[in-house]
Amino acid sequence: MITTFALTDNTKQIQNMNNLPTIGKYHFMAEPFHCDFTKHLFIGHLGNNLLNAADFHSNERGYGVNYLNTINKTWVLSRLAIELDEMPAIYEKFTVETWVDNVMRYFTNRNFKIANEDGRIYGYGKSIWAMIDTETRQPVDILKVDNQTILKYIETNYDNPIKKSSRVKLDNNLILQKSIVANYSDVDINGHVNSIKYIEHILDLFPLEWYKQHTIRKFDIAYITEAHNDETLKFYTDKKIEMVSDEVAIQITKSNSEGEIEVCRCKITFV
Amino acid sequence: MITTFALTDNTKQIQNMNNLPTIGKYHFMAEPFHCDFTKHLFIGHLGNNLLNAADFHSNERGYGVNYLNTINKTWVLSRLAIELDEMPAIYEKFTVETWVDNVMRYFTNRNFKIANEDGRIYGYGKSIWAMIDTETRQPVDILKVDNQTILKYIETNYDNPIKKSSRVKLDNNLILQKSIVANYSDVDINGHVNSIKYIEHILDLFPLEWYKQHTIRKFDIAYITEAHNDETLKFYTDKKIEMVSDEVAIQITKSNSEGEIEVCRCKITFV
Repeated sequence: MITTFALTDNTKQIQNMNNLPTIGKYHFMAEPFHCDFTKHLFIGHLGNNLLNAADFHSNERGYGVNYLNTINKTWVLSRLAIELDEMPAIYEKFTVETWVDNVMRYFTNRNFKIANEDGRIYGYGKSIWAMIDTETRQPVDILKVDNQTILKYIETNYDNPIKKSSRVKLDNNLILQKSIVANYSDVDINGHVNSIKYIEHILDLFPLEWYKQHTIRKFDIAYITEAHNDETLKFYTDKKIEMVSDEVAIQITKSNSEGEIEVCRCKITFV
Repeated sequence: MITTFALTDNTKQIQNMNNLPTIGKYHFMAEPFHCDFTKHLFIGHLGNNLLNAADFHSNERGYGVNYLNTINKTWVLSRLAIELDEMPAIYEKFTVETWVDNVMRYFTNRNFKIANEDGRIYGYGKSIWAMIDTETRQPVDILKVDNQTILKYIETNYDNPIKKSSRVKLDNNLILQKSIVANYSDVDINGHVNSIKYIEHILDLFPLEWYKQHTIRKFDIAYITEAHNDETLKFYTDKKIEMVSDEVAIQITKSNSEGEIEVCRCKITFV
């Protein structure tokens, strides 16, 4: 069903017609009130900066949500993986480079490289995005939109060491850890629970003491169904919190009149 | 006990010795993932930008937490009032100007003006800060610290229409609305519940539907006691949520082995 689009010489030639490079580079700072008690950036805020970089990069190149909203379409984040050697410390300035290395009919792969001004690399990110119709909420064939603008900015020669991640496997014996009702602060401009808010709620499954001994090496989250205001979100883990050593899988479901549906699944690797 | 410090001609003369103006101006944008479902900046994120501006301004002038931490002292936010005619919309760039107009022995008054690049004013903020010793957690006489650096940057000729706010009065018959346990994401670099997180939790007392009909005109919060990880926060209002028309008072308490202690009190005026 999903066909990988092969870059032709022709698409390579029309790259950079607006003199914008395929790779966008954006500048951020680990703001003091976005840092946790260890004085390092919360991973949720780092995730937010990655999404900002994606948003700026795609809008500048004419295929972002600013354009898509005019034709009743939008980008939806389907998967986000972050692998970190280190997390920016309070007040540290860092850059996020982002580029798209592959466009398929229904998905694009977007990459992130997080480094400081001196080139020291904090880590990388990899994400998958779908384009949907904002009225039907159905997937749209990306290659049929706006003369394939996105293909002008494909970058296949910039390295990202994150391997293509496989689907997170879940046991049958998941443990319910908490249940919350999504409300005002959880909901984004599209009326859905904000992708980053899930990450914050997931990290809050672990006691603060945990983060004195452990840092996050990998964070991989797949967004399956959208959740909305007033829906009950349940957070499950594959092991008891006190039994977690280096790896834990988390499932979030929503419950409404149709029953309980999977919303996200996530795997975290701690060191 | 608290003496207002009168500016002398001498302190005026030593202003700007570092060529930095008394008023600092900082640039922000209403980032897409910091906007609510109405596509306007969440007030919590605006509050965060005000605190950033305060932090940048005081650090640049040598009396910020970067210096204070070296002598085991820090600034603590005691009160924050925000009055808004309008809230920045998604992607709008805005500036926060900040200046200190008065320094007393134990408190300083810091002002904020929020405008766009064309000078259209969104609103103002007013804040009161105390300086404390990070070991004893006791107030410190601001005028005895570092040769009164702060006095070099007093600005008394820039207007802020926010009136000096009076203490929020609370009924005896408060209604308990929710109870949460403060955890990892709530806690800031000092190990205390983040000032902005209280604002987010307060706004979540109102259903999303409420914000379809109402916007925040004034938000005034007094921080009384610090709360910590694992403490239970209780949120009370002076009227039933469904009975709120334009004004509501909120109290937050924390419960620990010493009983229930007031943490914040807040008044919101909606239009």
